[in-house]
Amino acid sequence: MARWDPNARERLERAALELFVHQGYDRTTVAEIAERAGLAKSTFFRHFADKREVLSGGDALLRLLADAIVAAPPGAGPLEAAGAALAAAGAHAFTAERHPAVRERQQVVAANPELTERELLKREALATALTAALRERGVPDPAAVLTAELTLLALRTALAHWAARPGQDFTALALAELAALREAAAAL
Amino acid sequence: MARWDPNARERLERAALELFVHQGYDRTTVAEIAERAGLAKSTFFRHFADKREVLSGGDALLRLLADAIVAAPPGAGPLEAAGAALAAAGAHAFTAERHPAVRERQQVVAANPELTERELLKREALATALTAALRERGVPDPAAVLTAELTLLALRTALAHWAARPGQDFTALALAELAALREAAAAL
Repeated sequence: MARWDPNARERLERAALELFVHQGYDRTTVAEIAERAGLAKSTFFRHFADKREVLSGGDALLRLLADAIVAAPPGAGPLEAAGAALAAAGAHAFTAERHPAVRERQQVVAANPELTERELLKREALATALTAALRERGVPDPAAVLTAELTLLALRTALAHWAARPGQDFTALALAELAALREAAAAL
Repeated sequence: MARWDPNARERLERAALELFVHQGYDRTTVAEIAERAGLAKSTFFRHFADKREVLSGGDALLRLLADAIVAAPPGAGPLEAAGAALAAAGAHAFTAERHPAVRERQQVVAANPELTERELLKREALATALTAALRERGVPDPAAVLTAELTLLALRTALAHWAARPGQDFTALALAELAALREAAAAL
């Protein structure tokens, strides 16, 4: 067993997801996850604080979205920057290849209140990060807070549709949601 | 000790808040809360599932807001119904009399991750209830989802300002937030 393994994190995530799906979240231990991944329990704890954390995807999605907002062209408006963030999620996080794992993950989270609570904390952190990224672009409040919320609404709705059926393009779904929200916002 | 006490719930909430403030959430037991309220531990569990639940305010705020949306005049648009909900919160939940307790509660929740997680779950339930109330008024999606989010954003921002300093009118703060969000939404 290697002390350092470049794929340890991914292997642990995959092993955890498989065990949660097959024997349930409550009945799975950290030791079992590590064993299935072929790693030591101590390796698990170098990557994750606890069992709840293993499915959270760390802050990868948060960084992906926030970075895309900051990196959008200088002339892009708040919603265009939001669109760039959703497209980045479609290109790197919610790809056809990752569809089965994302769908299973959604089901495990929905079935476990503990994981749902962790998910809501992550969502809160995501809203804060997107708002900060928009402010960094010079978007004032409350437009920054509002755009961050619209981005998350579009992301969640699109993700639910995308996860429900394979073969769909996440970016197209998310941008359509964002456009519908913009239209609804203008009409309020 | 009366088997049935019409004020048991309030007394337990007040006792819990006092203990959480003075000795910390983690170091307070359900038995201590019941004792301070002059009630049996079994009475506590007739009202709350666990220690985390005692500060959640139950679903009182959720019902207050959702009922106000449903009861708004038939001709009222989504944002007017949202305004009626915020005014109901100002009239019944965030009153001058309740200011000290609400402020203490906010501080205790912010200082305890467990309580923050519970709060986020409640917020999620609130978003779902407001969306359902708006749909009941005939508001279509995504306007219903969007209006529910704007209502919650206005509520949270106004609550933070209101709790920070006594002597302010919650309804006025919340309606000003809602108007600013509407303006920002129209300009996106």
